[in-house]
Amino acid sequence: MTFEPDALKTLVQRYLDTVVNGSADDVAALYAEDATLEDPVGGGEVHIGRQAIAGFYKNTDGLELSTELLSFRSGGTEAAFVFAITVGTMRIEPIEVMTFNSEGLITSMKAYWGPADITQL
Amino acid sequence: MTFEPDALKTLVQRYLDTVVNGSADDVAALYAEDATLEDPVGGGEVHIGRQAIAGFYKNTDGLELSTELLSFRSGGTEAAFVFAITVGTMRIEPIEVMTFNSEGLITSMKAYWGPADITQL
Repeated sequence: MTFEPDALKTLVQRYLDTVVNGSADDVAALYAEDATLEDPVGGGEVHIGRQAIAGFYKNTDGLELSTELLSFRSGGTEAAFVFAITVGTMRIEPIEVMTFNSEGLITSMKAYWGPADITQL
Repeated sequence: MTFEPDALKTLVQRYLDTVVNGSADDVAALYAEDATLEDPVGGGEVHIGRQAIAGFYKNTDGLELSTELLSFRSGGTEAAFVFAITVGTMRIEPIEVMTFNSEGLITSMKAYWGPADITQL
């Protein structure tokens, strides 16, 4: 199966909006039950399953966040995009890759960024 | 194992330079023997092995090409980057994800782009 690019972009935008406006559980609900999350890639930790993923997003629960989709590409059931996230005075611009199942739930997320991609506002 | 970000960036830049200046076999030699290539992602075709990969690059052998690395991220043994490639009067800006083995050879490449990412110069 494949999604239209616009459908995947809508899913990614909903994810970025939920990161800002939703709870950790709200964000985790956008993931499939057995999804995986690696953020940052190479950081040595892969979060497996919706509960572990909710735990990851609890790290930023209650913090002042904003997100902005900067660049979006997709193919089949996958999306790759550049976005900015600000946490307090820190701005990070990762490249992220997501795969989706037929229900539009995220089955894997990988975020590529490092210290060089952080700026202080 | 992991690479320093600069080491991966050097490998990606060498790849983009070889796409411009090398033959299809030169580009394929940057890949591991059992590497995979999907370009575009979702296009329905995954090229497996160095010989199939050389065949993919033969599509643009002899054409006037240029490439430019626009944005680069890495983690562990993986890199994600935005680049521009011009083929004649056509400019495409994919997001690409590559994984590498310990010898610095590409073990997988996935290119995310679609018709919306093509501009006519």
